[in-house]
Amino acid sequence: MTNAMNIKAIEKPGVLSKLTSFIAKRNVNIVYTQVYRESSEYASTYIEVEDVDDFDLLVKDIECIDEVLSVKKSPSMDKIWGKRIIIIGGGAQISQVALGAITEADRHNIRGERISVDTLPIVGEKKLTEAVRAVLSLPRVGVLVLAGSLMGGTIVDSIKEIKQHSDIKIISLNMVGSVRNYADLVVTDPVQAGVMAVMTVANTAKFDIDRVDEVL
Amino acid sequence: MTNAMNIKAIEKPGVLSKLTSFIAKRNVNIVYTQVYRESSEYASTYIEVEDVDDFDLLVKDIECIDEVLSVKKSPSMDKIWGKRIIIIGGGAQISQVALGAITEADRHNIRGERISVDTLPIVGEKKLTEAVRAVLSLPRVGVLVLAGSLMGGTIVDSIKEIKQHSDIKIISLNMVGSVRNYADLVVTDPVQAGVMAVMTVANTAKFDIDRVDEVL
Repeated sequence: MTNAMNIKAIEKPGVLSKLTSFIAKRNVNIVYTQVYRESSEYASTYIEVEDVDDFDLLVKDIECIDEVLSVKKSPSMDKIWGKRIIIIGGGAQISQVALGAITEADRHNIRGERISVDTLPIVGEKKLTEAVRAVLSLPRVGVLVLAGSLMGGTIVDSIKEIKQHSDIKIISLNMVGSVRNYADLVVTDPVQAGVMAVMTVANTAKFDIDRVDEVL
Repeated sequence: MTNAMNIKAIEKPGVLSKLTSFIAKRNVNIVYTQVYRESSEYASTYIEVEDVDDFDLLVKDIECIDEVLSVKKSPSMDKIWGKRIIIIGGGAQISQVALGAITEADRHNIRGERISVDTLPIVGEKKLTEAVRAVLSLPRVGVLVLAGSLMGGTIVDSIKEIKQHSDIKIISLNMVGSVRNYADLVVTDPVQAGVMAVMTVANTAKFDIDRVDEVL
């Protein structure tokens, strides 16, 4: 069982360290955290913890830390955003892939799943290489869809890194360039590519991407 | 100037605390961090730091920590994902809003902007209330678009919280229910709602949402 909270605190070096060591001393495991600056004065810290006996007490204790201004209990990110489909590419294709993925996620979420669809419209080999590699830094990603007309070169290196370091599945549109040779599935129709990305992660779908060995 | 790294470490209570205090002792400010479990044994920690004199040295020092298995330099999340549009809703509308937002973001990103579009297809007052409130826990959100046919009740409470605690702008489709009374902009056409969400955050667009005072 996970619990989550949002902590508003003064922004200065060491505050996150103080918060995390405060929690670690109680032998509570932090499973996810996010810090971001609200302004030059304040930082917002989201912390998700696991198996806490008395979460309300932990919240109260954290409220007493000098640098902390307020603590608010929050639903866990996992519960809200669920499994994630990432779509990267550009032009006419990317919004069509998103349309397929979002429509299909809506159909599964209505039956109790939780799948969200994140889209980064971007072009150019260098930018795409960086963006694809950065997917490794995102939590809970199930599938990455590459949505463009031409992708190859160093983008392939990023795909190899994803394959090496994660279980993220890769769907590529049937496009020019070497990227499609490294995808788990190549799909010609962009709407269908989006639908299949969601089917790959949905527990309510009977689809095993590893059993498909053809260009659709 | 920010630098970022991905740290693979053994998963146990106190490891994040050890990492953050190690960095804090060097008087380096952590501006963003994310931890997530890769498995029951390993956790992946993404850390973004600011104004480090010698980032390569910091990486090397962190590699020497007992629990750390590997450290990889990474581009910053801000640089990759940029400003974020969040679209929450369901049915026929949500994918149409996304289509407008993604197509418009593609047009701006091609001119040097970095805007991404994140979509959660979900329905039901309670689930929507939670999801809208959770937007406050996300970094770099510029606009939230509510994409449905009927939203009101407790969803309004979440919108009020967002207004109180952030500068996030809210665009609502012209729908049944009280939500549209609390939006910064009400738009009838879903594709246009998506386009305007992106125009609101894009530096390359000449559009000020606060100067529009009508239902489009």
